Amino acid sequence: MAKAACDRLFINAHFATMTPGGEPYGAIDADALAVTGDRISWLGLAEDGLPDAPEVIDLEGRWITPGLIDCHTHLVYAGNRAQEFEMGLNGATYEEIAAKGGGILSTVMATREASESDLAAESQTRLQALISAGVTTVEIKSGYGLDLENEVKMLEAAKHLGEINPVRVLKTFLGAHALPPEFAGDSDGYMAKVIHEMLPTIHALGLVDAIDAFCEKIAFSEDQVRQLFKAADRMNIPVKIHAEQLSNQRGAELAAHFRALSADHLEYIDEKAVKEMARAGTVAVILPGAFYYLRETQKPPIKLFREHGVPMALATDCNPGSSPTTNPQLMMNMAAVLFRLTPEEALAGFTRNAAKALGLSSEIGTLEVGKQADLAIWDIEHPSELTQAIGSNPLYSRIFGGQ
Amino acid sequence: MAKAACDRLFINAHFATMTPGGEPYGAIDADALAVTGDRISWLGLAEDGLPDAPEVIDLEGRWITPGLIDCHTHLVYAGNRAQEFEMGLNGATYEEIAAKGGGILSTVMATREASESDLAAESQTRLQALISAGVTTVEIKSGYGLDLENEVKMLEAAKHLGEINPVRVLKTFLGAHALPPEFAGDSDGYMAKVIHEMLPTIHALGLVDAIDAFCEKIAFSEDQVRQLFKAADRMNIPVKIHAEQLSNQRGAELAAHFRALSADHLEYIDEKAVKEMARAGTVAVILPGAFYYLRETQKPPIKLFREHGVPMALATDCNPGSSPTTNPQLMMNMAAVLFRLTPEEALAGFTRNAAKALGLSSEIGTLEVGKQADLAIWDIEHPSELTQAIGSNPLYSRIFGGQ
Ligand SMILES: [Zn+2]
Ligand SMILES: [Zn+2]
Repeated sequence: MAKAACDRLFINAHFATMTPGGEPYGAIDADALAVTGDRISWLGLAEDGLPDAPEVIDLEGRWITPGLIDCHTHLVYAGNRAQEFEMGLNGATYEEIAAKGGGILSTVMATREASESDLAAESQTRLQALISAGVTTVEIKSGYGLDLENEVKMLEAAKHLGEINPVRVLKTFLGAHALPPEFAGDSDGYMAKVIHEMLPTIHALGLVDAIDAFCEKIAFSEDQVRQLFKAADRMNIPVKIHAEQLSNQRGAELAAHFRALSADHLEYIDEKAVKEMARAGTVAVILPGAFYYLRETQKPPIKLFREHGVPMALATDCNPGSSPTTNPQLMMNMAAVLFRLTPEEALAGFTRNAAKALGLSSEIGTLEVGKQADLAIWDIEHPSELTQAIGSNPLYSRIFGGQ
Repeated sequence: MAKAACDRLFINAHFATMTPGGEPYGAIDADALAVTGDRISWLGLAEDGLPDAPEVIDLEGRWITPGLIDCHTHLVYAGNRAQEFEMGLNGATYEEIAAKGGGILSTVMATREASESDLAAESQTRLQALISAGVTTVEIKSGYGLDLENEVKMLEAAKHLGEINPVRVLKTFLGAHALPPEFAGDSDGYMAKVIHEMLPTIHALGLVDAIDAFCEKIAFSEDQVRQLFKAADRMNIPVKIHAEQLSNQRGAELAAHFRALSADHLEYIDEKAVKEMARAGTVAVILPGAFYYLRETQKPPIKLFREHGVPMALATDCNPGSSPTTNPQLMMNMAAVLFRLTPEEALAGFTRNAAKALGLSSEIGTLEVGKQADLAIWDIEHPSELTQAIGSNPLYSRIFGGQ
């Protein structure tokens, strides 16, 4: 029986569908995939009869995986912090670097000074690097503006980048990233501004897909973040959190209580909180780049996440100060080398579980009929190669929304 | 007064010449560079008068560094070891992996089975990655053939790659890499074959720029390597060594005694041997990729190398089993993050000191009039960015031998 027609057909491919429960990597007995519009419309064996297609692409045995999803980035910013890094390696103390304007506030200053178009242009280089690595969906956080005007500017730049590139951009409002200098000594006052002024205004502009907060001694307390989450909850905005990166502030449990999409970093999380995350369906986003770059020694409890069934995502955490990277494959390798994730877990971390961390499981993250045709096509013989090589990029081509 | 004519002129550039003794990175008061034939023929300020040139390239403020030199690679090989990596992460024991044909001998088998053209084709992908990262000179070792025919095949493949790509290839004979299965239990017998049969024959074929040996408990003893070095010395072939990677076998001192170009790895070297290296002018080649991938904890004694004036080079150590990478910038970042090299030391490690590790200091490794016009041109604002970003590649373009 002839199959329905489609727009494009990929033949002679191997598939890592990343659907769970079956073969490793969700590998299936199929060698062809059809795209209709922006959707996967068929997946099967050529010998069982192919749909009619005006365009047939022979992949000569290459592998197709879901397009990569980078679910935690701060890629919109201005400037860089290379000279601060260099000063540290040349023996400067933290105080000397701070005196020369180092640290997160240097990025805040540079970002505030940049125009929206300059900000987008600087960030385009980083987004292009992710796209070239096979990324089809990227989350971008604000958090270097720290006032209404500049947080809006960052999120507008993120939105603009999504409009001019073949990539899906999710915008996360991270006003609660750090205390701006003008609120020094008054973090409650700043949090009140975030909750009562910034969040409602920015949300009304349609710039908030989710909110996030940095819950840490050097940032905001569990109690301050709870107030923010309550406000988001009232507005039906999904929440995410930076938690337990440098110490255990019980941020992950708080996030689970609000059924957060994800809790991120989590080096210092304990088993009680892991269980809460499992119960809430909150994804653990593991960020090996920051762990590596900051020379941390406390590793996230991978075994506990496995044991309690908490899905693990991975992300670049692309940012200028603690994870200056745009290389998802390197993060997969670091997750394996440093944290002992398996290559299959690492790939799930940039596909299926990253989709869940963005609340998009029904649309992206696996290769299934009806889902978005976001595909990464690789010059590999086995998907384990994506993780084993140290940050290589064997991308052959990339399809976003069927194109 | 009008300057002499040249073939090409690069203007509006910044220069990290990497010549020692002056400003950081050998930065100089110049904004233009002229190329005549394959040489740098002039370096100066445009305002002092430019040479006549049929071709003028405006670099709009970009930085020029010497082309990168990867002075330690095993990039010619067949197959990959991703599934062995995956088995380990899925809990397989070393014995189980070995039983399935894992380890270096799996690469030896795959390399022996490959034709020279297949071997070159597989390796071309890796060489292309290095070229795209700004590499203009690469050393390639044999050592997965372990018999005359297959060691020749590897070095012929390396030579061929140098002929078809815009890159200088140095060929190192590493017959003493591992014991081939047919000599199991008879490492003296194999070393005799390396010395009396393989080395003279391969050298007569013009395939040996240097020799190398792996001096380690799991490979060859100091005494066996000494016999090899004596033979090389009689033939005036420069020597290099893999030493003190996993334990202290006194290989670096041995190498210094033979005025080796370099001793490589060196995690377990002691101060006495560092002093011997300094006296002999032997370069310390630091290989952070293998340290990272093998999850080693003993770091090379960077402070001792500095203190005693041993030049430090860096390299990818590109190989399938312990450093599967083709990313020099990532090695620079790992050298800084893991071993605390400064960004300037890291860049010297891939330029000036790498040239010295290959015996090519008079030709490449710094930007000086009379040297080869091997240039890497970068989209950066400061050379520290090359090391600070985690494996980014801001290469704008690349000139090899003036082209
Ligand atoms: Zn973050
Ligand atoms: Zn090596």
